[in-house]
Amino acid sequence: MVFKKITLIGRSNESFEDATTDAIDRAEETLEQLKWATITDQSVELATASEREFQVEIEAAFELQEGVSE
Amino acid sequence: MVFKKITLIGRSNESFEDATTDAIDRAEETLEQLKWATITDQSVELATASEREFQVEIEAAFELQEGVSE
Amino acid sequence: MVFKKITLIGRSNESFEDATTDAIDRAEETLEQLKWATITDQSVELATASEREFQVEIEAAFELQEGVSE
Amino acid sequence: MVFKKITLIGRSNESFEDATTDAIDRAEETLEQLKWATITDQSVELATASEREFQVEIEAAFELQEGVSE
Amino acid sequence: MVFKKITLIGRSNESFEDATTDAIDRAEETLEQLKWATITDQSVELATASEREFQVEIEAAFELQEGVSE
Amino acid sequence: MVFKKITLIGRSNESFEDATTDAIDRAEETLEQLKWATITDQSVELATASEREFQVEIEAAFELQEGVSE
Amino acid sequence: MVFKKITLIGRSNESFEDATTDAIDRAEETLEQLKWATITDQSVELATASEREFQVEIEAAFELQEGVSE
Amino acid sequence: MVFKKITLIGRSNESFEDATTDAIDRAEETLEQLKWATITDQSVELATASEREFQVEIEAAFELQEGVSE
Amino acid sequence: MVFKKITLIGRSNESFEDATTDAIDRAEETLEQLKWATITDQSVELATASEREFQVEIEAAFELQEGVSE
Amino acid sequence: MVFKKITLIGRSNESFEDATTDAIDRAEETLEQLKWATITDQSVELATASEREFQVEIEAAFELQEGVSE
Amino acid sequence: MVFKKITLIGRSNESFEDATTDAIDRAEETLEQLKWATITDQSVELATASEREFQVEIEAAFELQEGVSE
Amino acid sequence: MVFKKITLIGRSNESFEDATTDAIDRAEETLEQLKWATITDQSVELATASEREFQVEIEAAFELQEGVSE
Repeated sequence: MVFKKITLIGRSNESFEDATTDAIDRAEETLEQLKWATITDQSVELATASEREFQVEIEAAFELQEGVSE
Repeated sequence: MVFKKITLIGRSNESFEDATTDAIDRAEETLEQLKWATITDQSVELATASEREFQVEIEAAFELQEGVSE
Repeated sequence: MVFKKITLIGRSNESFEDATTDAIDRAEETLEQLKWATITDQSVELATASEREFQVEIEAAFELQEGVSE
Repeated sequence: MVFKKITLIGRSNESFEDATTDAIDRAEETLEQLKWATITDQSVELATASEREFQVEIEAAFELQEGVSE
Repeated sequence: MVFKKITLIGRSNESFEDATTDAIDRAEETLEQLKWATITDQSVELATASEREFQVEIEAAFELQEGVSE
Repeated sequence: MVFKKITLIGRSNESFEDATTDAIDRAEETLEQLKWATITDQSVELATASEREFQVEIEAAFELQEGVSE
Repeated sequence: MVFKKITLIGRSNESFEDATTDAIDRAEETLEQLKWATITDQSVELATASEREFQVEIEAAFELQEGVSE
Repeated sequence: MVFKKITLIGRSNESFEDATTDAIDRAEETLEQLKWATITDQSVELATASEREFQVEIEAAFELQEGVSE
Repeated sequence: MVFKKITLIGRSNESFEDATTDAIDRAEETLEQLKWATITDQSVELATASEREFQVEIEAAFELQEGVSE
Repeated sequence: MVFKKITLIGRSNESFEDATTDAIDRAEETLEQLKWATITDQSVELATASEREFQVEIEAAFELQEGVSE
Repeated sequence: MVFKKITLIGRSNESFEDATTDAIDRAEETLEQLKWATITDQSVELATASEREFQVEIEAAFELQEGVSE
Repeated sequence: MVFKKITLIGRSNESFEDATTDAIDRAEETLEQLKWATITDQSVELATASEREFQVEIEAAFELQEGVSE
């Protein structure tokens, strides 16, 4: 069974953990067998957000089910 | 709302800008809410292209609509 | 025609080549026009695999067919 | 209007978020139009701080007002 | 005579060259003896710009005049 | 007096700070004169942990006592 | 339980796999609970080896037992 | 047939494309079978050039003919 | 108290140490509380210097005094 | 005696080792005193090769004989 | 025979060479068969040292004797 | 006029400066118009050298004369 990686950016006004969880929760909505997530970038959006927004980019790895297209 | 990033390579015989736009145009054909694109690689293909071909690799970020699978 | 890149991790108890081929074979199951694959990471899983498992992460590039969504 | 980037290191005994905010708050004391901040380094100072100190290095981007020297 | 480096981001709806020149022109408004500029990042802003905007980040090096503070 | 660096990975179900502290506490159990720690990697383990587990890799620097072997 | 990482270089006249296994076998001689190994460098020694020698540098992660010094 | 890579820097007062082509043209003067070129650096020379000069560093790959020395 | 980092390039016909000291001395002329400097680049200028010139790029960190603008 | 480094890409339908050896063998055809080779890139060519082709980029270091031009 | 790498930071008020030798000398006090050392970081400590202190981080590689634990 | 870059490693039992000069001197024996050299690696050879040997890898850039082959 092959793993696939996708890149998501989670967002939160509270903390880096919340922003990380935001992205993992969204991935788990439509993907099964999520294995791990690596943090690849962290930033704070100031201009376009009403409030300071923590943003965390993750690479999430999951098992690619047979027959499912990339 | 989470952002997702995909990696595309645009191609042009004219310029790096055209190759960049080639990739962004293609992404906007099927994706809404494209936010930004970062240039991650630039090269010129010589052997397999009849004419010199500028190639630009971009990471395009867009808002991942609710319920849509990665 | 734009190229797209996806990140897959192939797995094998034999060798890095087998793990690489594992990932390329899986990509070719559902993707046409695979152009090239670059090795971006190599590791050996010891804890969760009954036998030592060679893992190879590849970035596979393919032609994005018209109208197909990312 | 051109953006400029400066590198600051915020400090906190509590958390990485507090250290990040420490740096952004200080920048906003004398700079207008702060756009975003990217986290470029995270560490914990142990020897010279009475208490463990979380340190976060950020690159803060802001709009460079006309006539203002770098 | 010591050199100093600052990081600026130029912006243009036309091309990467224009965005590069935008940043160098702004630096030369208030700085003498600009020596060279290195391109450290290239991107295209899509969401907050009315039109696609090429953005180029440069590190500009110049001679730090005696007595002038950093 | 020479410094030595070792690489540890702390783990916590709560936060990146806790995972960082987990690794520093463990180092201080058997090492004196810990000077600083740099964060070199952050991830979330999903598959093998009953609960999501924040993992933080640190490089911890300490004074290498005379006569002590590496 | 904290993980620790050490850097080893395995050597073989046959293949990169053999060199990788050489390093993992040596680590398992004196370490329990080896979790995974990441390949960080690959080279071929020509001058000082009677025969061409494949060399593979790995970072091996293992569980640091309680009370054991780094 | 093995490929060889060389590093050249092209120069132009007009654009990054011209500077890239400057380097490729020069390589093709004395080399056959040029396959591709990757952009590894971009800068603007200000001090020693009468006019602003775009400089592009490329790695050019070509087929190394039999018997030809490196 | 927040730290700020600036990038300077020191120059010397003698050695890398002299070039490093050249940059630190210049920083200390107008800045108080300089904490540390990291070497980020080393080169030798041959064309535009009458004699070979060692150049060392440093990132110097200092305490940003209250009310002082970046 | 100074060492020089050149960049070669070996090719094989069998394995990464064969591709590595392909490049080293070719270098040794016209160069004496080859000291070591570092692997800097690994990929698989799919489009232009009749069969999947393993490609390995190496940096080969050798003693530069007196009087021989670079 | 496997090689092992450790990371040490040497210190000197004189030069980068002295700081490098400081670290190698200390390693050779308790380790046999030191093979080579790579410089991975260079800095100057200003705040906590009475005099400016050159610091050089090295990765030292040595032969791991049979039966010796990591 | 295009610039070309070559990679050389200079060697000295005295210092990093001497090793750097060793490589530049050798380049200037057979190359005219050497423009600059960037330090890309520094190490100390211990095993195969009778005395500790400082090694410095440089990328030397020079003007590629018309008609001269790479």
